[in-house]
Amino acid sequence: MTMSTDWLEKINWNGDGLVPVIAQETGTGKVLMMAWMNREALTLTVEEGRAIYWSRSRNKLWRKGEESGHVQVLKDIRLDCDNDVILLEVEQLGGIACHTGRHNCFFQQLQDGKWQTIEPVIKDTGTIYKK
Amino acid sequence: MTMSTDWLEKINWNGDGLVPVIAQETGTGKVLMMAWMNREALTLTVEEGRAIYWSRSRNKLWRKGEESGHVQVLKDIRLDCDNDVILLEVEQLGGIACHTGRHNCFFQQLQDGKWQTIEPVIKDTGTIYKK
Repeated sequence: MTMSTDWLEKINWNGDGLVPVIAQETGTGKVLMMAWMNREALTLTVEEGRAIYWSRSRNKLWRKGEESGHVQVLKDIRLDCDNDVILLEVEQLGGIACHTGRHNCFFQQLQDGKWQTIEPVIKDTGTIYKK
Repeated sequence: MTMSTDWLEKINWNGDGLVPVIAQETGTGKVLMMAWMNREALTLTVEEGRAIYWSRSRNKLWRKGEESGHVQVLKDIRLDCDNDVILLEVEQLGGIACHTGRHNCFFQQLQDGKWQTIEPVIKDTGTIYKK
């Protein structure tokens, strides 16, 4: 039996067939990152229980953590009132969501009209990603 | 003296001159909503210390709370690693961020292939918004 795809069609996909997806860390409640999914990415995310995004720069599926091991294990999935934004609750394996080697991607804080980096690099990205 | 706008130009605005903005509640860490800002909206948000979005449907500035009183008081503003997503930390006046009268907009949860509404309406929207 194939699962109905009505839930997929309820989503207001944008003109490129994408929806923005916020990943929030279970337990801490920290917002880790925002990325995009298409129908295939979201379907695979649900089927495999891990975040799989659509990379707009590489124009292909982005199986988060496939290279770094920093997989996001799916805990919960929500849709907003306008059906055009998704919120994931995830367990962030390795404690690092950002490709810069930081816990999350929102490490630049606006201070007196300047963006200041205020979160430390936990792990050098040269050791996370193959060249 | 006018504040430099270098910080605005660091942002990777999309083709429509917009950036997605996540609003997270201070204290609870709940993700309240996601909306969009243009340069003017973000400038005013910083100047006035409250969230002011750009409404894509109405094609004008959306001074969050101007009708409902549910203003979002700005506590912190972050930019992500790709400079294309903003995260606000806000105090949600009235405890209601969603136009449906709920605490936040992410009240639909995916359960067995269906979106289920799992958050209560705190205040009937008919009493929040003028007809």
